[in-house]
Amino acid sequence: MDDDVPLILTLDDSGSNASAPLDELEREELPNENGGSYDVIHDASSPAAGDCCAQQSSARHNWEMNYQEAAIYLQEGENNDKFFTHPKNAKALAAYLFAHNHLFYLMELSTALLLLLLSLCEAPAVPMLRLGIFVHATLELFALMVVVFELSMKMRWLGFHTFIRHKRTMVKTCVLFVQFIEAIVVLVRQTSHVRITRALRCIFLVDCRYCGAVRRNLRQIFQSLPPFIDILLLLLFFMVIFAILGFYLFSPNHSDPYFSTLENSLVNLFVLLTTSNFPDVMMPSYARNPWSCVFFIVYLSIELYFIMNLLLAVVFDTFNDIEKRKFKSLLLHKRTAIQHAYRLLITKQRPSGISFKHFEGLLRFYKPRMCTRERYLTFKALNQSNTPLLSLKDFYNFYEVVGLKWKAKRNREHWFDDLPRTAFLIFKGINILVNSRVFQYTMYTVVAVNGIWILVETFMLQGGNFFSRNVPWSYIVFLTIYGVELLLKTTGLGPVEYLSSGWNLFDFSVTLFAFLGLMALAFNMEPFYFIVVLRPLQLLRLFKLKKRYRNVLDTMFELFPRMASLGLTLLIFYYCFAIVGMEFFAGVVYPNCCNTSTVADSYRWVNHTVGNKTVVEEGYYYLNNFDNILNSFVTLFELTVVNDWYIIMEGVTSQTTHWSRLYFMIFYIVTMVVMTIIVAFILEAFVFRMNYTRKNQDSEEDNGIVLEKEISKEEVVGIIELYKRSSAAPETSQLQKIVLQMDKYGQMSTTFLGRRSRTKSDLSMKMYEEEIQEWYEEHSRKEESQAPLQESASASTSSLKPLSLRQRSQTVI
Amino acid sequence: MDDDVPLILTLDDSGSNASAPLDELEREELPNENGGSYDVIHDASSPAAGDCCAQQSSARHNWEMNYQEAAIYLQEGENNDKFFTHPKNAKALAAYLFAHNHLFYLMELSTALLLLLLSLCEAPAVPMLRLGIFVHATLELFALMVVVFELSMKMRWLGFHTFIRHKRTMVKTCVLFVQFIEAIVVLVRQTSHVRITRALRCIFLVDCRYCGAVRRNLRQIFQSLPPFIDILLLLLFFMVIFAILGFYLFSPNHSDPYFSTLENSLVNLFVLLTTSNFPDVMMPSYARNPWSCVFFIVYLSIELYFIMNLLLAVVFDTFNDIEKRKFKSLLLHKRTAIQHAYRLLITKQRPSGISFKHFEGLLRFYKPRMCTRERYLTFKALNQSNTPLLSLKDFYNFYEVVGLKWKAKRNREHWFDDLPRTAFLIFKGINILVNSRVFQYTMYTVVAVNGIWILVETFMLQGGNFFSRNVPWSYIVFLTIYGVELLLKTTGLGPVEYLSSGWNLFDFSVTLFAFLGLMALAFNMEPFYFIVVLRPLQLLRLFKLKKRYRNVLDTMFELFPRMASLGLTLLIFYYCFAIVGMEFFAGVVYPNCCNTSTVADSYRWVNHTVGNKTVVEEGYYYLNNFDNILNSFVTLFELTVVNDWYIIMEGVTSQTTHWSRLYFMIFYIVTMVVMTIIVAFILEAFVFRMNYTRKNQDSEEDNGIVLEKEISKEEVVGIIELYKRSSAAPETSQLQKIVLQMDKYGQMSTTFLGRRSRTKSDLSMKMYEEEIQEWYEEHSRKEESQAPLQESASASTSSLKPLSLRQRSQTVI
Repeated sequence: MDDDVPLILTLDDSGSNASAPLDELEREELPNENGGSYDVIHDASSPAAGDCCAQQSSARHNWEMNYQEAAIYLQEGENNDKFFTHPKNAKALAAYLFAHNHLFYLMELSTALLLLLLSLCEAPAVPMLRLGIFVHATLELFALMVVVFELSMKMRWLGFHTFIRHKRTMVKTCVLFVQFIEAIVVLVRQTSHVRITRALRCIFLVDCRYCGAVRRNLRQIFQSLPPFIDILLLLLFFMVIFAILGFYLFSPNHSDPYFSTLENSLVNLFVLLTTSNFPDVMMPSYARNPWSCVFFIVYLSIELYFIMNLLLAVVFDTFNDIEKRKFKSLLLHKRTAIQHAYRLLITKQRPSGISFKHFEGLLRFYKPRMCTRERYLTFKALNQSNTPLLSLKDFYNFYEVVGLKWKAKRNREHWFDDLPRTAFLIFKGINILVNSRVFQYTMYTVVAVNGIWILVETFMLQGGNFFSRNVPWSYIVFLTIYGVELLLKTTGLGPVEYLSSGWNLFDFSVTLFAFLGLMALAFNMEPFYFIVVLRPLQLLRLFKLKKRYRNVLDTMFELFPRMASLGLTLLIFYYCFAIVGMEFFAGVVYPNCCNTSTVADSYRWVNHTVGNKTVVEEGYYYLNNFDNILNSFVTLFELTVVNDWYIIMEGVTSQTTHWSRLYFMIFYIVTMVVMTIIVAFILEAFVFRMNYTRKNQDSEEDNGIVLEKEISKEEVVGIIELYKRSSAAPETSQLQKIVLQMDKYGQMSTTFLGRRSRTKSDLSMKMYEEEIQEWYEEHSRKEESQAPLQESASASTSSLKPLSLRQRSQTVI
Repeated sequence: MDDDVPLILTLDDSGSNASAPLDELEREELPNENGGSYDVIHDASSPAAGDCCAQQSSARHNWEMNYQEAAIYLQEGENNDKFFTHPKNAKALAAYLFAHNHLFYLMELSTALLLLLLSLCEAPAVPMLRLGIFVHATLELFALMVVVFELSMKMRWLGFHTFIRHKRTMVKTCVLFVQFIEAIVVLVRQTSHVRITRALRCIFLVDCRYCGAVRRNLRQIFQSLPPFIDILLLLLFFMVIFAILGFYLFSPNHSDPYFSTLENSLVNLFVLLTTSNFPDVMMPSYARNPWSCVFFIVYLSIELYFIMNLLLAVVFDTFNDIEKRKFKSLLLHKRTAIQHAYRLLITKQRPSGISFKHFEGLLRFYKPRMCTRERYLTFKALNQSNTPLLSLKDFYNFYEVVGLKWKAKRNREHWFDDLPRTAFLIFKGINILVNSRVFQYTMYTVVAVNGIWILVETFMLQGGNFFSRNVPWSYIVFLTIYGVELLLKTTGLGPVEYLSSGWNLFDFSVTLFAFLGLMALAFNMEPFYFIVVLRPLQLLRLFKLKKRYRNVLDTMFELFPRMASLGLTLLIFYYCFAIVGMEFFAGVVYPNCCNTSTVADSYRWVNHTVGNKTVVEEGYYYLNNFDNILNSFVTLFELTVVNDWYIIMEGVTSQTTHWSRLYFMIFYIVTMVVMTIIVAFILEAFVFRMNYTRKNQDSEEDNGIVLEKEISKEEVVGIIELYKRSSAAPETSQLQKIVLQMDKYGQMSTTFLGRRSRTKSDLSMKMYEEEIQEWYEEHSRKEESQAPLQESASASTSSLKPLSLRQRSQTVI
C-alpha cells in the first residue's frame, strides 16, 4: 500500500498542509510498477528529486485531495462549467466548496427571488402587498448585501483575473452596483424615482446555479438572432413598401381612417402583420372599391404566409444546427473532464487504470449519498474488461453509468409470492385479472361512458346552482368503480409496482381528487368545489389506447423540464417588460379613459338606467393595465396572444404619446422571437423523437436504460476486507447484509439491475452514433496538436498526456 | 441495314397494318450480331418461327412503332403515369395520341374552367355577369358534352377494364352523370334548385393534365391526414374538457355571456383556439375574479402553444417522409420507364446498346421540336463510354440530359468583339464599368437614397391630391439615373446576356413601369396612376447585397411553381366552400341585420344627422357575405386569416340556425390542414435548401446544370451522311451550317454547352446520393424476384429481362 502514490498531485496546498514537504506536492519520479518505461513528465519547472518513502498519512491526504479534485472535474464536466474556472489552490478550493453546495445555491436562488418579488410591493404595488418605502428599500439592500457576499465568495474562488474575464459575473457586478446606489437613493429620498433598472434584476435569477437551463435558452435565443434579424428586416422592408403603396392608394378615401397618414399606414400594416385588425382595416376601402381587397390579400400572402413562415424555417434550421453543436461540445467537454479526472486517479505504479479503491474515493466526493454496494456496482458496470483496473476507455462511460439506480433482481415475481397458499392464489387471480385485456378495455369503456355521462349531465344543467347538497348518484357510482379498480390494481400489482408507472400515478391522483371532491360536495365545502370539475380529466386515460398518443404524451413528459425552462425564460422577458411598462404606463388606463381614440368603446364603463333596471355597459379593456406587476403580466400575456392587442396599444397611446407604440411593437417582436424559438424547439424535439422511433422500430417499448450485473459472494467479501483494512467499518454493514442474504438463499451470487430513465442525451448519442466517433477522433487530434510540447518520447502507451494544472488551464477550451 | 431489326416488337397493330405479316409482330429468333449467345425469350405463347428476311419498309414501320412506344414510355415515366394505362394496341395508341397533345389538354382545361366560371353567372350571380337560366344551363350542358367526349376518348385508349379500375376517372364519370341530370332538370324546370353538387365541379379541373401538381398536393394532403386527425382529436378532447370546466366555473357569473350554456362554452373555446375572441372572452370573469385568468392561460398554453405546434410537428414530419418516399417512387418509376424504352430500342444484332439512328428516332417522337444538332449532342452527352452504342447505364441519365439547352460555346467573350476597334474600346470600357464594384455600389446607394426620398416625400404629403399635373423633379432625376444604368448595362453586356439574369430582368421591368408611370403622370391618365406607386419596388434591388437574401429569394423563385400549385389547391377548396356557402347563406347578411346577436355593432349602418352634417356609422361586416362567388371568396379569405372570423360566423348564425356554425368550423379545420401543409412545405423546402448549401459550400455560386461537349467536323459530316442515306434532307441544313462555320474559322471541332436550371429533383439526387444506390439495388432485386419466370438460362448478359406487354402490364408497379 505504501507505493500507492498518485501520478499527479495538483492542488498546491503548501499553505494549509505543513506536514507534507514541498517536494511531496510535485510529482515524484518513481519507476512504474508494470514495466517502468513510463517516462513521467515534471510538473514543476525545477526537476523534483522527491522523497519516495513519504509518510502513509501524507499519501492518504494527497489522495483525498486528488479524489476531491477529480470529483470537481467530473462535476464541471457535468455542469458544463469551463475549466478555466477550476479552483487553482487550496484557498480557492475552500471557496469553491463553500460556493458549490445546495445550501449556497438555495441562498442564491432565494435572494434572486426576493429581489424579483420586491416589485410586488414597490411603488405601483399590488394593493394587498403594499409595503412602506423604508421597508422594501431595506429589504432590497439586505438582498443586495447577500449578493455582494456571494460575489466575493466567487471572486475568492476564481481569483481576480478569472473573475474579470468572466463576462456574466462582470455584468452581474455592474448591475449590482447600480442597484445598490439606486436603493440607497430611494432610502435617502424616501420616494421612488423612475427605476427602469429594476428590469435588470432578472440577471440575479439568471445567474443562479439552478437556472442553467434558462441561461442555455437565452444563449440559444441570442445565437438564433442574426438570421432572425435578417428576415425581420425583409419583413419590415415589405411593410414599408406596402405602407407607402397603401397611403397612395387609400388616403384619398376620407372615410378610411387607417391610411390617412403614412404613420397610420405603417402602424396599421404592422398590426395587420399580426392579423389583429384584419377585416376592419380593409373594410372602408373594400366598401368603396371591391378590388382593393387585392392589396390586402397580396400583403398578407407575402408577409404573413410567406415571410413569417420563412422566419420559422430560418430559426428552426439555426436551432437544429445549434442543438447539434451544443450536444457535440457538451460531449467533448465531458470527455475532457473525464480525462482530467482519470489522470488524477491513476498511480505511478499502475498507470493503465484506476483501482476500485481510488474509484471509491472519487465517488465519496462525487456522490456522497451513494452507498458502498452501489459504488462497487458502478465500478463493475464500468469495468467491461473484468480486470481489477478501470481503463480510460471504460472510464469514458462514467456519466452514463453513474446515474443508474441499482436494485437486487427479485427472485420472486410478485410481491405476494411469499404469502401463504390461499392468499397467494387470491392475489394471483387479481393480478391476472388486472393484467388482462378484458379488464383494461372494460375500464376504458367505463371511462368513456363516464365522459359521455358528464357531457350529457352538464348539457342538461342550464345555469343555476350546480353544487347542491345532494350528490348525484352517477358521481358515486363511477367513483366506486374507480375506487375498486384502484384497490384491485394496488393489491394485484403491489403498491410499489403500481405507482412506478406514470399512468397509474395519474389515475391514482385523479381518483383521489375525485374522492376529495365528493367529500367537498358531501360536506358542502365551498372553496373545494373546483375539485369536482376536474372529473373530466379521467378521460385522459383514454389516450393510453393509441400508440401515437402514448408517444406524444411520453415526449411531452420528456420535454417538460425543457418546456418549463423556456417558460421561465419567457417570464424573465415578461418581468423586464412589466417593469418598464409599470414605470411608464401605470395608472394611465381607467374606465372611460380613451375617448379621443378609435378604441374608446372598449374602455367604456356606463351605468344606464333603462326603465327601472340598471344596465351596465362595460368594455372591460381598462382592466388590461400596467397598474401593478400582476396586472402587467396578464396584459403582457394578452399581448403575446396578439389578438386585439392593438386595442391595448391604442388605449395606452391615446393617453400618453405616440412613442408608446414602440414599447408594444418591440414587445411583439421579442415575443415573436421567443415564440418562434419555442415552436422550433417543439418541432425539433418531436421530429427528432419521431425519427428516433422510426430508426429503432424494433426496440419499441423501452423502460429507460437498464444494465444487469452479477456479483459473487467472494467479491463482496473481498470488498468488505478492503474496507476493514482502511478502517471504514460502518460502511460495510450493507455489504454484510448482502452476504447474509446470499447465505440464506444459498446463492453464490446476486444479480443487480441498474436502471435510469432515458434522456435526450442518450437519444442523441444513438442518433449521431457515427458522427460521434469522428468528433472524438477530431478532438483527440486537435488536443495532440495543441499539446505537442508535453509529448514525451515514450508516450505511445497512452494517448493521454498528463498536464500540470497551470498548463491545463491554458490548453483546455 | 437489313439486319437492323428491333429486339422487341410490342404494339399489336395487326388490325391496322395489313402489310406486315402477323409473325413480324412477334419478336424474331435471330442470332445476335455480337456473339449470338443471347437467348431471346418468346413473347407470344406460341414460339414464333419468324421470317428473318422481313421487308425493309416493314422493318422501318416497325421501328417507327417502337420509337413511338419508347417515347410514350419515357413520357409516362416523366409524368408519373402508371404503366397499366399504357396503350395496348394500335387503336388505343391512336386514342392515346389524340388525347395526349396540348390541343386536347387545352380543351380539357378550358372546359373545366368554363364549368367553374359558370358559377359567376348562375343564380346568386355577380350582378354584371348575370345570365338567363336558359343560357347558362345550355352552356353547362355543352361543356358537359365536351367532358363526355373526353371521357370516351380516354375509355377508348384505356380499354373498358382499365377505365373501370382507374378511380379518379370513375369519380369523374359519376360526377359528370349527376351534373348532367341536374343541368337537364334546371333546363326543364327553368329554375335553379339547391345545387350543392356544383361544388364537385372542381374535379374536372383537378383531373386536367396541366393540374398534375394540384393532384399531387391533394394526395399529399390526404396522406398527411391520419396523423393530423389524431392530434386534432387530442385538441378537441382538451377543448371539451375545458368547456365543461369553464361552464362549471363561469356560468354562475350572469354578466358572462360566453359560458352561459355548454354550447356557448364549447363554441367560445373553439373560437378561443383561434385566439379570435381572446381578451374579450376572459374579461367578464377576469373583472369578477382576477385569478380566473389562470384558466385561460392554461387553456391557451396547452391548446395553442403546445398542441397546435404539435400538429405542425406531426404534419412536418409526415410531410418530410412523404416527400422522400415520393421522390424515391418517382425516381424508380422513371428508371423503369427508361428500361422499357431501352428494351424497345436495342436490336437483336446489337443488344448491348442503342445506336444513334434509333436514339434519333426516339427523340423525333419524344421531342419533335428538337433540332438534329441537339439530338446528336444529347446522344453524345449520354454516351459516356464514347462507343457508338448507348448502354443502358448511359441511358439511365436520359431525363437529366434531355432537358439541356445546347449552345455553341462562344469564341468571342462579348457581343461587341467583332465591332471595329474604336467601338470595341468604347463598349469594352462600358463593360468594365458596369461590371465594376464601384458602379454596383453607386447604384445601390442611389436606390437607397431614392427609397429614403420616397419615404420622406410621402411623409410630407398629408392627404390631398398627390397626382397633380406637375411631375416631381426627383422622380425624373431618379428615373433618368435608372434609365442611364439600364442603357449602360444593355450596351455593356449585350441585350441577351443582360436579360438572361433574373435580377436584371426585374430591374428592367421596374424601370419600364416607372417610365410608364411617368407617362401616365405627364399625360394625366387616371387609370394608370397606380403604376407610380410601384416605384418603391426598386428598393428590392438592395436585397442583392446580402448572401442570405439572395439565397432566400432564389429559393423563393425555385419554390414559386410549387407555391402556385398549393395556392390553386387552396382555391379549389375555396370554390367548394364558396358554392356551399352561396347555396345556404346567399343574401342572409345585410346592413342592420343581426340585431339579436352579440355582434350587431359590426353589421350596423346608420345615417345620423348631427347638426346639419350627416354622419355615417358603418360596421361594414355586412360586406362579408356569400351573395356571389367573388364576395364568397373574399369572405373565405377573411375566414382563413381567422382574426374576427367569429363576427362573420355569429352574424350568419343569428340569421340562420345554430348549425351554420358547423360550416364555419369545418372550414376553419380544412384551412388549418391546408395552411399547416403550406407551412410544412415552406419549412421543408428551406431547411432542405439550407442543408444543401451547408453540404456544398464549395460550389457556392451555381448557374444550374452545365455540360460541355465537343464535336469534331468528321462527326458532323458522318451524321449528315447518315441523314442523307435515310433521305431526311431538310433536317441536315443546320448541321451543314455548323460545318460551314467550322470551315470559316478553320476549326476542327466546336464545343457546345448544355445548360438548364437546377430543379428540386437535382438537389434531392445529390442529397440522397448514397441512399439512391440502395434504392436502385433494392429495386432491381425486387424486379428480379418478381419476374423469375421470365429468366432465361443465359440471361446473365444483362440484368434486364425483356417482357411482353401482357406480362409487363401485370408486373410493373
